[in-house]
Amino acid sequence: MKKVEIGHGSGGKLTKELVENLFLKYFSSPALHKLSDSTYAPGFNKLAITTDSYVVQPLFFPGGNIGKLAVSGTVNDLTVGGALPKYLTAGFIIEEGFPLEELEKIVSTMAETAKEAGVEIVAGDTKVVEKGKCDGVYINTAGVGQVVRELSPKLIKPGDKVIVTGTIGDHGIAISLAREEFELETTLESDCAPLNSLLVSLFELPGLRFMRDPTRGGLATVLVEVCESAGLGALLYEEKIPVREDVKFVCDMLGYDPLYLANEGKAVVIVSPEDSQRALEILRSHPLGKNAQLIGEITQDPHVLLKTEVGGMRRLELLEEDSLPRIC
Amino acid sequence: MKKVEIGHGSGGKLTKELVENLFLKYFSSPALHKLSDSTYAPGFNKLAITTDSYVVQPLFFPGGNIGKLAVSGTVNDLTVGGALPKYLTAGFIIEEGFPLEELEKIVSTMAETAKEAGVEIVAGDTKVVEKGKCDGVYINTAGVGQVVRELSPKLIKPGDKVIVTGTIGDHGIAISLAREEFELETTLESDCAPLNSLLVSLFELPGLRFMRDPTRGGLATVLVEVCESAGLGALLYEEKIPVREDVKFVCDMLGYDPLYLANEGKAVVIVSPEDSQRALEILRSHPLGKNAQLIGEITQDPHVLLKTEVGGMRRLELLEEDSLPRIC
Repeated sequence: MKKVEIGHGSGGKLTKELVENLFLKYFSSPALHKLSDSTYAPGFNKLAITTDSYVVQPLFFPGGNIGKLAVSGTVNDLTVGGALPKYLTAGFIIEEGFPLEELEKIVSTMAETAKEAGVEIVAGDTKVVEKGKCDGVYINTAGVGQVVRELSPKLIKPGDKVIVTGTIGDHGIAISLAREEFELETTLESDCAPLNSLLVSLFELPGLRFMRDPTRGGLATVLVEVCESAGLGALLYEEKIPVREDVKFVCDMLGYDPLYLANEGKAVVIVSPEDSQRALEILRSHPLGKNAQLIGEITQDPHVLLKTEVGGMRRLELLEEDSLPRIC
Repeated sequence: MKKVEIGHGSGGKLTKELVENLFLKYFSSPALHKLSDSTYAPGFNKLAITTDSYVVQPLFFPGGNIGKLAVSGTVNDLTVGGALPKYLTAGFIIEEGFPLEELEKIVSTMAETAKEAGVEIVAGDTKVVEKGKCDGVYINTAGVGQVVRELSPKLIKPGDKVIVTGTIGDHGIAISLAREEFELETTLESDCAPLNSLLVSLFELPGLRFMRDPTRGGLATVLVEVCESAGLGALLYEEKIPVREDVKFVCDMLGYDPLYLANEGKAVVIVSPEDSQRALEILRSHPLGKNAQLIGEITQDPHVLLKTEVGGMRRLELLEEDSLPRIC
């Protein structure tokens, strides 16, 4: 009998199989079949809808906690869908015995982050399960927003530019270090942040095609998925991809590839060649986008290729194995 | 250090304390402060928003499974808020090793129930946690709907009638029996069902004041909460409250009070005296409302009182102790 494996939650290949073979088999909404992180709901005045459950471990990590993540992640899913995030719901599943003081820290961080992002938490739910049936607390946030810019992989054309809004892998490595007792002195923090104030300024660019936040599965998985939807490929330049030195160091040490590590405060932006410089200027004028880089371009050839720093060519695929489960 | 207890998830007194002392302290949306099960979101075209996480145990029970519950419960929260349910999101937290076959049963039931209710599941998310960090599967559904009738406890007046749409306690007892190995032969099933086709017909009644589905905490807790919000009370007649004979029997045996047991396919309807007979007719003409009963009336005196079958008077309070945790 087939069973659910940890990798089914990785955001990579197994997740894709589960979604395509099971969820889409039964949930046949055309909106859902688009497989983007948020959905345009017809009938209302351009409403976008999204949901995410957060099971990150540890609950508190350098740069944030599960509450900051739960608000930021859902705000970001709406924003990269071309929407202005408006309302969130919050559903808590709490393990019996969880300290109320820690719950209060999480809830107050959610409120701060929502305020920062300009969204309101308008509905909530709390369930409590017995000790050993949860891992402290799990949070689901669903979000609705107002679509102001319809973005889609179908708009992407060969020659379009690929931009990443900052250094990649920070969240993955911050979580990894928070889990282990390494003797590493580092100032590294998760990049976890609501990105709407950064990204909404890009909506004015006529050449803006598509945005996605590279969370589970990382930059590589997101680009492979997007290119597959677009029926195109991409050529990326490793030397252009911003990675912090300490992230590189830990990756080398632990055998991680920053291209597959989760980010919680970064976006991949695909934009026409004409608007690519303006997009970079807009992004770099914002604190959350100061390290934005143009990292490659879209190609007719339907593969995602990385030109490595030593001059080789490497084909990128979906994340196969989840080396860091429960990253969000 | 204070800790979260199972009772914080009961839907009764402890839940109320947690919501008021913690969540409302930080989440200050005026919409949220209404504390109804769904929220009117300003700015969109009369949008209602709600969320619920489902942690029911066992996952499969007579009359349904967690998937049927997750769709029905959220559809019902929107409907009793005066809205036509339109879109749901579904967030799954799955325990490593959970059989894919069972997941498929749950997902296919969700799709069937959504179809029955006329709603679309438009966004989803899957997380997988290690064995022993979940209990099979937990599901969050958030829902959005179109508000067509603004209902509120503030509309309730002394003399208004209290109607329940059918027998109470069926879900609570069905779950209780599914957990234990009683030697009981019963045809009892959970009443779990989407109620929008039943309740939407009531929206045409000018005297419709308020509706609520009495889930966690049961009929008594819901009426105490609603009356408190309205600044009024209620007088209920025990002899009028519909309870199945087998539910009564199990309640007597196990020491449960049907007034505090969860229902997942029933609503409490508060309606003007003029429209009460019409409301009953409408409800009884539908298979899900055939056992609807007028069970009491709203009073100026701010207590919820039960006139017992033997002629005594009993004051009802919020659920104090959760004798059946993880009922939904």
